[in-house]
Amino acid sequence: MSTPNYSAFKTIIVSLDGSVLVIVQNRSKQRNSWVAEVPRELREVFDLADRDDRVRVVVVTAELTSPAYCAGADISGGWDVLWDPEEEKEGPHAHRDSGGKTSLVIYRCRKITIAAVNGHAAGVGMTAMQLPFDFRFVWAGAKLTFPFVRRGIVPEATSSYLLPRLIGHSRANSLLLTGATFTPESPLIQGLYHQILPTREEVFPAALAFAKELAATTSQVSIAVAKGLLQHPGNSAEENHLYDSRAMRALGSTADGEEGVRSFIEKREPKFTGTLSKDLEAWYPWWQEVNTKHRNGKL
Amino acid sequence: MSTPNYSAFKTIIVSLDGSVLVIVQNRSKQRNSWVAEVPRELREVFDLADRDDRVRVVVVTAELTSPAYCAGADISGGWDVLWDPEEEKEGPHAHRDSGGKTSLVIYRCRKITIAAVNGHAAGVGMTAMQLPFDFRFVWAGAKLTFPFVRRGIVPEATSSYLLPRLIGHSRANSLLLTGATFTPESPLIQGLYHQILPTREEVFPAALAFAKELAATTSQVSIAVAKGLLQHPGNSAEENHLYDSRAMRALGSTADGEEGVRSFIEKREPKFTGTLSKDLEAWYPWWQEVNTKHRNGKL
Amino acid sequence: MSTPNYSAFKTIIVSLDGSVLVIVQNRSKQRNSWVAEVPRELREVFDLADRDDRVRVVVVTAELTSPAYCAGADISGGWDVLWDPEEEKEGPHAHRDSGGKTSLVIYRCRKITIAAVNGHAAGVGMTAMQLPFDFRFVWAGAKLTFPFVRRGIVPEATSSYLLPRLIGHSRANSLLLTGATFTPESPLIQGLYHQILPTREEVFPAALAFAKELAATTSQVSIAVAKGLLQHPGNSAEENHLYDSRAMRALGSTADGEEGVRSFIEKREPKFTGTLSKDLEAWYPWWQEVNTKHRNGKL
Repeated sequence: MSTPNYSAFKTIIVSLDGSVLVIVQNRSKQRNSWVAEVPRELREVFDLADRDDRVRVVVVTAELTSPAYCAGADISGGWDVLWDPEEEKEGPHAHRDSGGKTSLVIYRCRKITIAAVNGHAAGVGMTAMQLPFDFRFVWAGAKLTFPFVRRGIVPEATSSYLLPRLIGHSRANSLLLTGATFTPESPLIQGLYHQILPTREEVFPAALAFAKELAATTSQVSIAVAKGLLQHPGNSAEENHLYDSRAMRALGSTADGEEGVRSFIEKREPKFTGTLSKDLEAWYPWWQEVNTKHRNGKL
Repeated sequence: MSTPNYSAFKTIIVSLDGSVLVIVQNRSKQRNSWVAEVPRELREVFDLADRDDRVRVVVVTAELTSPAYCAGADISGGWDVLWDPEEEKEGPHAHRDSGGKTSLVIYRCRKITIAAVNGHAAGVGMTAMQLPFDFRFVWAGAKLTFPFVRRGIVPEATSSYLLPRLIGHSRANSLLLTGATFTPESPLIQGLYHQILPTREEVFPAALAFAKELAATTSQVSIAVAKGLLQHPGNSAEENHLYDSRAMRALGSTADGEEGVRSFIEKREPKFTGTLSKDLEAWYPWWQEVNTKHRNGKL
Repeated sequence: MSTPNYSAFKTIIVSLDGSVLVIVQNRSKQRNSWVAEVPRELREVFDLADRDDRVRVVVVTAELTSPAYCAGADISGGWDVLWDPEEEKEGPHAHRDSGGKTSLVIYRCRKITIAAVNGHAAGVGMTAMQLPFDFRFVWAGAKLTFPFVRRGIVPEATSSYLLPRLIGHSRANSLLLTGATFTPESPLIQGLYHQILPTREEVFPAALAFAKELAATTSQVSIAVAKGLLQHPGNSAEENHLYDSRAMRALGSTADGEEGVRSFIEKREPKFTGTLSKDLEAWYPWWQEVNTKHRNGKL
């Protein structure tokens, strides 16, 4: 892979801070609402981050000039904003909404992903822009809404899969079937957040410090395989044992695995050098993905 | 479907308050314990509610003259109360207990379902009468017990499936493997409840106000499809994307989907008119159910 | 089964206190770290406990002379401590790490299992020594760490399967993908624990009193089948109904099921006499396990 160029985006501002890729949404005047270009650029940058060995952590945030972290899709022209005009020519079975396509790219990114939610969030600002991330930091005053059942549509962007897995079906029902607005300290939603910060100003710095600490102390290969295990654990404890023991065997004999032992014995921080492009063995991935591009006749 | 008659029940009192169907248990003197007629009538009323387009929300509660919301099955005559005498002629493989049959009907109801637990609850009063509902409201003083392992039987009525999905296996173990009694504010059980009210008197009014608000603001079709997505999300994020994007495409072009956009733009509450009998397309349901009537040789 | 001999272990001290089997780790000077013999003895004792009808509950704890409940694997000689030298002759596909093999034996034990975590815990001290247990008691001051991604390896011992099931993926990410250290009252980890005790001294007595109460009041057969239902609930509510209703039908007609009714009617504590060796019918187990011994070509 040639060195990616992160400067060509329009709806996002992307910069590499050490090994942390920082993505700032660039539509503050529109409360970072989604128009067609936003999810396309997000998919592109997360795909680059996934393959760029220099990147260990990705953080998404908003400028404080916008009251919203992300106000959701811009539906002033109706729901068509969700569909790719090119795909739409294929007819009603070309139903791959941009929120879902973006969620999948973020979810599959093999680096640590963090949403720094320093403003209000609604719709796709709650789903694709938060749920597929590994960690969510949030401002205590943020107004958070999954409004779908109050808009005549349904929870999208794989939220009906991701949210119950994250916090259980009891809380997911409270959020998705009401369309109500919550603040992070509500017992109904707080389980979603790694950290709740009192002011908007503290959210991104806290997320960035956390990102840098993880970038400095964790192994890139360990993170990628651990995320794979969490997302594809197998259907039973026994199957999981087959996967995680294979991973232990493989990683234990890499340079990172040896550095893990050495740094532990020497009581110092480890320095991991392994990268996804050279240290992931052929057994990864151990799962098969459903092809989402094929147009299923029934669906 | 001809207009259902809700006045013919004996063990429950059923009334339609706007678009909220209110079911009051009618065995206060017996602490709303279950005899054979109770689950039969519950299955009948939930099946009617599922198909009656006028109904948007179903609320179950108890009269305050009973100290219990539901004291569980009346086992003064042994466990036979759980089995249908007609089915029992088929022998030991006719094991479809009435708690489980009732749980499934409530779980499959495509309307919003709310348990207003304004008294103590035990056994089937915790399982079929609470777990398959979308939301649970409860009195802070309610004594709550899953006593099965202290009765020589097992957690029933699909509780070993539903409870861990609702609140996770750690808390489900604490409730199901101890048979102990809890009050709602225990950290071991509070995740089950949407709202905990200080007095018995406040539970039903709070649940009814919540029901009316959801009835007024949510789309009947959105709720049905959202419940379908939560219950049948597919086996991966990719599969879920295929289902939810199909639903988005279909619902976005219905009258409710258009009203969702219009009301948002006009900054007013939506008025949804879609109904399940005329606005659910042929792709719903996208899942197949295991046939529970067939008598499996091994089981 | 002849009466087991619990006195032959070296790395653990095992005693039968009524029907509670108490396992005290016996490597206090080494902070109860794992060498090869530890997981072998743990598998042996949990296998005995599973089959010994006298045992109703198993409690694992540490001596207070060790600051750690279990400090994890002794990796002073590298990761080889995890692999069985005999199996290793088979080459890289002989990847069945001792943590995972031990987790599976504890997880499959049909008796109630309790971890009394009265000291710090790291690595396999968090995974195999806690997650496969039914209940975890912990000292509020315990330092708890899943350090894998900071050691160049991955979360092992089926932790990527068990932990998200116990407390959800949001909290599991916070624990497994950071490698950070937590104390039990952190909202990120508290969901894992049935009870948090202020002092180290209180942990084992609280766990033992809880164990004795469950041993006295619960049915051995009920517990085994309830654990089976929780671990193997089926893929849908409908499948679960087939399993739990079969269990209800079978257990309701055993001596324990009848004692459950009788003691309820007579308002006294039950005295259950059923045992796994004589009262588990042929329909148990209803699930099939993946064979973990076969050496899978790809994995």
